[in-house]
Amino acid sequence: MTGCKTDIINAIIEIVGHDYVLTNAELLYNYSRDCTSDEESIPSAVILPKDEKEISKILKICNETKTSITVRGGGTGVSRGALSHTNGLILSLERLNKIIEINKIDRIVTAESGVITQDLRNAVLKEGLNFPQNISSANACFIGGNIAVSSGSPKSLKYGTTKDYVINLEIVLPDGSIIWTGKNVTKNATGYNLTQLFTGSEGTLGIITKVVLKLVPPVKELLLMIPFTKIEKLFEGVQQFFVKGYDASSIEFIDQKGVELASKFLDKKQWDSKRIEGILWIELEGTDSEKLMQQAIEISEFISAYTPEEINIADTQNEVKALWEMRSKIGEAVIHHVFFRDIDIVVPRSKIDEMYKSIAGIAQKYDFEYTVFGHVGNGNFHVNIFQDKQSSKKQWEDHLAIWVKAIFLKALELGGTISGEHGVGKINLPYLEDAMTNHQIHIMNGIRELFDKNRIIN
Amino acid sequence: MTGCKTDIINAIIEIVGHDYVLTNAELLYNYSRDCTSDEESIPSAVILPKDEKEISKILKICNETKTSITVRGGGTGVSRGALSHTNGLILSLERLNKIIEINKIDRIVTAESGVITQDLRNAVLKEGLNFPQNISSANACFIGGNIAVSSGSPKSLKYGTTKDYVINLEIVLPDGSIIWTGKNVTKNATGYNLTQLFTGSEGTLGIITKVVLKLVPPVKELLLMIPFTKIEKLFEGVQQFFVKGYDASSIEFIDQKGVELASKFLDKKQWDSKRIEGILWIELEGTDSEKLMQQAIEISEFISAYTPEEINIADTQNEVKALWEMRSKIGEAVIHHVFFRDIDIVVPRSKIDEMYKSIAGIAQKYDFEYTVFGHVGNGNFHVNIFQDKQSSKKQWEDHLAIWVKAIFLKALELGGTISGEHGVGKINLPYLEDAMTNHQIHIMNGIRELFDKNRIIN
Repeated sequence: MTGCKTDIINAIIEIVGHDYVLTNAELLYNYSRDCTSDEESIPSAVILPKDEKEISKILKICNETKTSITVRGGGTGVSRGALSHTNGLILSLERLNKIIEINKIDRIVTAESGVITQDLRNAVLKEGLNFPQNISSANACFIGGNIAVSSGSPKSLKYGTTKDYVINLEIVLPDGSIIWTGKNVTKNATGYNLTQLFTGSEGTLGIITKVVLKLVPPVKELLLMIPFTKIEKLFEGVQQFFVKGYDASSIEFIDQKGVELASKFLDKKQWDSKRIEGILWIELEGTDSEKLMQQAIEISEFISAYTPEEINIADTQNEVKALWEMRSKIGEAVIHHVFFRDIDIVVPRSKIDEMYKSIAGIAQKYDFEYTVFGHVGNGNFHVNIFQDKQSSKKQWEDHLAIWVKAIFLKALELGGTISGEHGVGKINLPYLEDAMTNHQIHIMNGIRELFDKNRIIN
Repeated sequence: MTGCKTDIINAIIEIVGHDYVLTNAELLYNYSRDCTSDEESIPSAVILPKDEKEISKILKICNETKTSITVRGGGTGVSRGALSHTNGLILSLERLNKIIEINKIDRIVTAESGVITQDLRNAVLKEGLNFPQNISSANACFIGGNIAVSSGSPKSLKYGTTKDYVINLEIVLPDGSIIWTGKNVTKNATGYNLTQLFTGSEGTLGIITKVVLKLVPPVKELLLMIPFTKIEKLFEGVQQFFVKGYDASSIEFIDQKGVELASKFLDKKQWDSKRIEGILWIELEGTDSEKLMQQAIEISEFISAYTPEEINIADTQNEVKALWEMRSKIGEAVIHHVFFRDIDIVVPRSKIDEMYKSIAGIAQKYDFEYTVFGHVGNGNFHVNIFQDKQSSKKQWEDHLAIWVKAIFLKALELGGTISGEHGVGKINLPYLEDAMTNHQIHIMNGIRELFDKNRIIN
């Protein structure tokens, strides 16, 4: 077979069947974007294989013909990792959507990588178990995609990120071979940790086809919502929370602009965003409601030294959900408002105050609007930079490159990194050499080369 | 400089100073063994560098002259990873023993890799924090060694293994370059997870010189000790504990032979090892003593369906320590009794009963004595095989190879692995091709080659 595109697509049709290679323009459009708001790339074909065996055959063809192919999960990413080259091939994992086994003794779940994360969470919950990564896009993202970018969630403070739950992966390598990276056990000191090498590798080393995840028992939740009149007191409160020895499952915040946008979006009048410079959420978990309330009261007393505002406490499932509303809707509120870019820097918790002040300084210098919110307990800020409605796409892109770089350099200077959960993708690739030494990039290229000599995937 | 050994040692003396290259036979002997009882390998020199810069210079020399060198931590390993080739060079990390920073806001500790694990645990405890890996050799092993083999501990059921606490590492690569693998943050989705690639790589990719670890707040402990008259009921009780949705920080056990040996060693008469086929320990953790006792009573009621014996509960620090005694001394009790080999297979928790039965069957078939104990909550068994006092060293080694292989093959057949915390080292290397596919070994060799083309380290 030659490397001619029609030949390749015909050969792939022979593997997956005619119905599972999409070439209709309207259908292709659905695979042209992720959740960034301002770029699309229409593929020439979308392939929908049914299992790892078909994927293996497809990759063999791509490898032999040096045809690049982009793996796509739920398409909910914000780093453009799921976007193909123009006229490229997309391999969608949407048909690999079976939950294979939930084992209550082992507390592990085995599933195909195209299962929607919330479907997986619901299925294990039915068995009395919990996959604790409540990622905000859970209703649409695929579990394989979560693993590919090592995504985080509001619960990452207590539970770590997706990577901390992955114990074994089935991978199709670019040469078509199929491997498992580990064993279905929670302790393993036998050889290099291939499982964690693939986790977070954004599909650049192989295609994740099956996943084995650790589970935990479900627990009760209690939520505090704490408005602050001074944002610096919010950061000080968070830092001292840890010094005092307290613990929480989530510590999240939104800043003043976020309060304004979310209030408008949700049509809620109770927060005066002139007075309120930020809102903090502290979520506690445990098995005993009474004990949780005791802890909440103790924490309320502690945190009230940092704000004169009244503290809200929710301790039933519905109340907790309602109290999270403003935080959980802030992303939508921003999308509703403007075109924007969402970056997700991380700094050590001891530097959150300094990072926030620096973002304000950078925004003032370059005169852009923004809001900061996110996983403040982990030092992980979503900085959403708004597009000035007057500027052209070209102007916006040129400016953005400078602004993003200024924020990234500050995060790096403070010992942080440029992404805590979104990944590098295409969008952060230009900044990788700021975030890493040449040596680190050299090592990563070496690893990439080892698995994908012809650079066919992603 | 030539590759002549005297030239190399002289060049190294110029780097570290005369006092820090040991060549005296008596001193060398101290570096000739690990904690396996039956092998030694005397090195020709032991080098004691003071920091990563000296190590970098040493590795440059080794790399240029293709001289192999073995890194040694506390020498407490049981897989012979710290033993040099005969007349080889040892690089000991014992002078890299500084704790650099404990940050209470970030809840992380930065230390050199030669810090004794218990010293690190004590230092963070003084600051109101906890490094929860209470590995049994903590008083002698080095934190860098724990990371190199990704060691576990009795607390691994709740806290995972050492790998789950490593967020950043300073590494000297075989070519002498010095890199950091990550950043001092708890979320990072920027590039491949080099931190976890080095963790558990047993020093084969580079030398760990500094470590950055996550910490947690300390909590209270409560311990149940439960004797069983039927070992199969012990395994069933453990399995149903998880089905019921209970949680624990440790679930450990020793079998009948272990009860006999430990009772004799500790001169304790209360356990009749004719009647008692196994003892189970369940440790609970929490912030509230009253709540812990409630849980303990509930669990006691549950577990008493599986054994007629009386359940002991300890809830003060001293009582807990005393109640752990038999489990914590079983290793010493075995050493005191016979020459032995300790293997540490892992199987899924749903297979612990089948694995235990198979070990008994294999022992009966080949007629050897043994005891099984360990981290049953993780499915991680320490199988200690005793040397028949009549057999010669040669006979023992020949037999052992067959017996160990039979046990390993069964663990693998049950979806498990050959080591949960000891690592591969020299001792398990012959079995690696049973534990892994050719493809996996090929990938690992490729990674090794990428970092250490001349195969100079470990």
